Amino acid sequence: MADFDPKITRTDSPAVTTGPIRGSRKVHVGPLKVAMRQVMLEPTSGEAPVTLYDTSGPYTDPAVTIDIGAGLPELRRNWIRGRGDVEEVTQREVRPEDNGQLGPDRSGGVASFPNVRRRVLRAKGGANVSQMHYARRGIITPEMEYVAHRENLGRDAALNTLRDGESFGAAIPDFVTPELVRDEVARGRAIIPSNINHPESEPMAIGRNFLVKINANIGNSAVASDVAAEVDKMVWSIRWGADTVMDLSTGRNIHDTREWIVRNSPVPIGTVPIYQALEKVGGIAEDLTWEIYRDTLIEQAEQGVDYFTIHAGVRLPFVPMTAKRVTGIVSRGGSIMAKWCLAHHRESFLYERFDEITEIMKAYDVAYSLGDGLRPGSIADANDEAQFAELYTLGELTKRAWAQDVQVMIEGPGHVPMHKIKENMDKQLEACGEAPFYTLGPLTTDIAPGYDHITSGIGAAMIGWYGTAMLCYVTPKEHLGLPDRDDVKVGVVTYKLAAHAADLAKGHPAAKLRDDALSRARFEFRWRDQFNLSLDPDTAEQYHDQTLPAEGAKTAHFCSMCGPKFCSMKISAEVREFARLNPSPLAGEGDSPEASGERGLSEESAEAGMAEMSTRYRDGGDLYLPEAE
Amino acid sequence: MADFDPKITRTDSPAVTTGPIRGSRKVHVGPLKVAMRQVMLEPTSGEAPVTLYDTSGPYTDPAVTIDIGAGLPELRRNWIRGRGDVEEVTQREVRPEDNGQLGPDRSGGVASFPNVRRRVLRAKGGANVSQMHYARRGIITPEMEYVAHRENLGRDAALNTLRDGESFGAAIPDFVTPELVRDEVARGRAIIPSNINHPESEPMAIGRNFLVKINANIGNSAVASDVAAEVDKMVWSIRWGADTVMDLSTGRNIHDTREWIVRNSPVPIGTVPIYQALEKVGGIAEDLTWEIYRDTLIEQAEQGVDYFTIHAGVRLPFVPMTAKRVTGIVSRGGSIMAKWCLAHHRESFLYERFDEITEIMKAYDVAYSLGDGLRPGSIADANDEAQFAELYTLGELTKRAWAQDVQVMIEGPGHVPMHKIKENMDKQLEACGEAPFYTLGPLTTDIAPGYDHITSGIGAAMIGWYGTAMLCYVTPKEHLGLPDRDDVKVGVVTYKLAAHAADLAKGHPAAKLRDDALSRARFEFRWRDQFNLSLDPDTAEQYHDQTLPAEGAKTAHFCSMCGPKFCSMKISAEVREFARLNPSPLAGEGDSPEASGERGLSEESAEAGMAEMSTRYRDGGDLYLPEAE
Repeated sequence: MADFDPKITRTDSPAVTTGPIRGSRKVHVGPLKVAMRQVMLEPTSGEAPVTLYDTSGPYTDPAVTIDIGAGLPELRRNWIRGRGDVEEVTQREVRPEDNGQLGPDRSGGVASFPNVRRRVLRAKGGANVSQMHYARRGIITPEMEYVAHRENLGRDAALNTLRDGESFGAAIPDFVTPELVRDEVARGRAIIPSNINHPESEPMAIGRNFLVKINANIGNSAVASDVAAEVDKMVWSIRWGADTVMDLSTGRNIHDTREWIVRNSPVPIGTVPIYQALEKVGGIAEDLTWEIYRDTLIEQAEQGVDYFTIHAGVRLPFVPMTAKRVTGIVSRGGSIMAKWCLAHHRESFLYERFDEITEIMKAYDVAYSLGDGLRPGSIADANDEAQFAELYTLGELTKRAWAQDVQVMIEGPGHVPMHKIKENMDKQLEACGEAPFYTLGPLTTDIAPGYDHITSGIGAAMIGWYGTAMLCYVTPKEHLGLPDRDDVKVGVVTYKLAAHAADLAKGHPAAKLRDDALSRARFEFRWRDQFNLSLDPDTAEQYHDQTLPAEGAKTAHFCSMCGPKFCSMKISAEVREFARLNPSPLAGEGDSPEASGERGLSEESAEAGMAEMSTRYRDGGDLYLPEAE
Repeated sequence: MADFDPKITRTDSPAVTTGPIRGSRKVHVGPLKVAMRQVMLEPTSGEAPVTLYDTSGPYTDPAVTIDIGAGLPELRRNWIRGRGDVEEVTQREVRPEDNGQLGPDRSGGVASFPNVRRRVLRAKGGANVSQMHYARRGIITPEMEYVAHRENLGRDAALNTLRDGESFGAAIPDFVTPELVRDEVARGRAIIPSNINHPESEPMAIGRNFLVKINANIGNSAVASDVAAEVDKMVWSIRWGADTVMDLSTGRNIHDTREWIVRNSPVPIGTVPIYQALEKVGGIAEDLTWEIYRDTLIEQAEQGVDYFTIHAGVRLPFVPMTAKRVTGIVSRGGSIMAKWCLAHHRESFLYERFDEITEIMKAYDVAYSLGDGLRPGSIADANDEAQFAELYTLGELTKRAWAQDVQVMIEGPGHVPMHKIKENMDKQLEACGEAPFYTLGPLTTDIAPGYDHITSGIGAAMIGWYGTAMLCYVTPKEHLGLPDRDDVKVGVVTYKLAAHAADLAKGHPAAKLRDDALSRARFEFRWRDQFNLSLDPDTAEQYHDQTLPAEGAKTAHFCSMCGPKFCSMKISAEVREFARLNPSPLAGEGDSPEASGERGLSEESAEAGMAEMSTRYRDGGDLYLPEAE
């Protein structure tokens, strides 16, 4: 079969990774040209190509020329303008403090994005341009249609298979219609983050009845990183499956870094606006004001940020509840607001001004990601009073946002031992009226720094199964340092497998198709198909080749674990042939597993089986078939 | 504080890694000198050293000179001989076929172990030397006492803390007495694998009411590997926490490789004897006989193997049940026996001769690990009729082994989606009378080859929580190639964190002490303590240093994520100081989380709090304390 090698294209702009994912080709499906990718299988398999959900954007499409300095094509441009409820306004002027040039650290900047827009969109006076607002008026937007096509992936093929899973009350449909997407958005059970100033984004949904999504965090910090590396990390993380990306930059150049990222991102971008607001006041939390914060929201909304993490649940009376914790407040946003509250002895301005913030959100369709500023930072602090006091406040704020038809998701922990994870999901569903839950991990133990993608991948898979809609990745560098490119990939792939394990366990109708296709390839020694169907074909092939590098080993009907003469897969194939030639009443195809299992246990049937097989053998049955058959 | 650097010692014998684990020192506790290790914390912390369970044997003790050619000291020699029920006999002579010199592959051998014994131990005529037999006669052996000391770790300190967990019916004690160990072994709920010919082993228990254990697999194969690498992998895997090691060698030199491993192993060694038996008949499954198998059991029992995987549940009538599977039979032992059964049209000789095998087991105290030869090899095949038919047969065999006072554990899957994991545990407990469950993973999805330590680590943590006693590790190379040294370490650490997450969730009384000590170190920026308390101090420090390499950064009160002026931990410390100086009625120490959480939500109390704090501030309260205080 054809094999597409990944190519690295370098231009004068910051370089990013382009070229198809190994073994896959980009396809665009239906009138909306929904981007997906197809894995072509070996012709000997007789199997159809496997179509996969694809987050990687135009970067993996060889037909598209990528120019990071120009930004991506505006897929949604006409959809947004066609609704007739937006107007072009002059963009707020960029000020030195937007890039942190007022603080003590002025050690250089990054180049401005060359193709920056001077005119941006805003809702016409008083209008609400949120997907939720359209949904509640019964309008199915192209964004909702796009989402339905994406989510439907494989459901045709799965329609005739048995549904199997435990969804804990989710209502996962056999088939996703645009109307179902509209209904989920209208009810607040799903969001489609889609700022009108980010027309480059390919619409996606976050909600309990859709596929579990994952988020990757990128961003420079005061200590390290640069814009080229951050744009590349964004492209790299969506290549491996990130459904959204959060730009968590701190320090200098926040505005310009974000412009590069948003203009080149086909996935929704989230931020934590308080980080930039803090830079604007030189890092002094007490100096933050509502005016500076509000101006930052508008600045970022005009750039096209799709969701804002807003820690409006960190209320003054909750702050002292954290004093007896082992690890206090570990959220940066949460600690900034806690400090502000204590310093001023006042209720949080985010809480007090919440409805004003909502007015801004609806003018651009920015979704809320209500931040868990009081999430536990250690096993010891899990599920404590501060955490749940904040969660119930987020539930109250959810209803206030929904009253204005603004989209909301809810952020969750953190560090939680396994036996306390489900309580988080249950309380969130109850407190927040089924608004999508978006959790960081949770980490299931504190004792493995360096492996926290795994300690948290365990918790992520579980809470995803229980109903979390999006999982925020954790990299191996968590608690220790800044993730590099390799860490980003490991984090994304780990969370992608956790999300998929959750989809499988929830009984998502089509999730199992990929597992089964890969398992058949494994059983039939189609090594290339096995690699190409995996989440990370490059690593799978590399690991295989470390033991058996010869090209012939990729078509060999054995592997390095057993060697050529001692292969359980080979023996299984012989058993299958034997069973085909000798249909035994002991294993009727139509029997329920339980019934046959019990019958298989009885002494009498075992003896009958032995006698029967023995007879057949004497009558000319043979365990092996000639190669040609 | 003192820091112990790991040292690599090379001798003429195969080289292995020796020297203390970074930041730890070896201690020997009590009259039995139970090996543990202690992590010394920074004097500024005012905290006592943290004592940890230690599987690493004498290799991490700087006071011991390691000579791989001589083997380890015989800790249990006098215990075993002191019971008066064993006799010395001449060891069965090693034959060419024991090392695979009859098969087609005669491409060289490995050196014999220099210090090989010619006389071995066996139970005196008719005696039973199993720990279960002693336990059932009310005898507390030194092995049981040793186990009690090891398992008790930290329980003194934990006795006054609140138990917190969900153990799904396990009976985890506050304190482990030797009598409790005896009782668990007598009831079959725990085993202490301890072949009388492996006196070098440090006793350990596998059972649902003890700490969750992990196993690492090593072994050469027909395609690759050599004895020096395998001995080093054994030492390397116990350094990072493997509680037992299975030697799964196939191909040539099986006997000699095993001798090197057993003589140098302080942890129980398990094998799958059918692998060697198959080599003795040139790899032709049909040519296997009971006589060859029996001889192999005795050969290995005399060498000191502590547990045998025996696939006696792969019965003839179950084999056709696998024909309709996506991945057939994936167990090597299972497929060998399936092929034998079909070829001869006869019931398995392992099943038919089970009581005779048990006679051998009890003469050396080899424990059964009843193999799951029909485990699912893909998500599609999970929990099917073949799997459960075998499981119920293993339950029947458990009772037959117990009738002769022989120790048993039960092997489990495999590939299982999350929603089907608990059924495996529930059925195993029911079918096998609470005999310890020993599972491979399970892998929770098939789509991530290269990351199957993680897909399976998720399942392992969950099934460990539900009650599995030992988790068999999976490395990143699973399904792809042979694990190298780095893969072994990643596999062990991943499973160690999964086992610990399970202990936490089960409510093991002392498990949380380590998490809390590490979290306090994290909160207080004691970087070295954080590294040293982690499962892999070397990797934790290396990751930290990649971003902030300067030595000063290890004592700095900030990290690379936020930089010096933007640190949530620092702000939390300020909140704590504030709360200490301003005790607020809003967060009373004695309140239940629910009560305070709800009160925290009320508008009135929030306002009261604000007013009160504002007053205190005006009265001279200050958010910050001078450095000196």
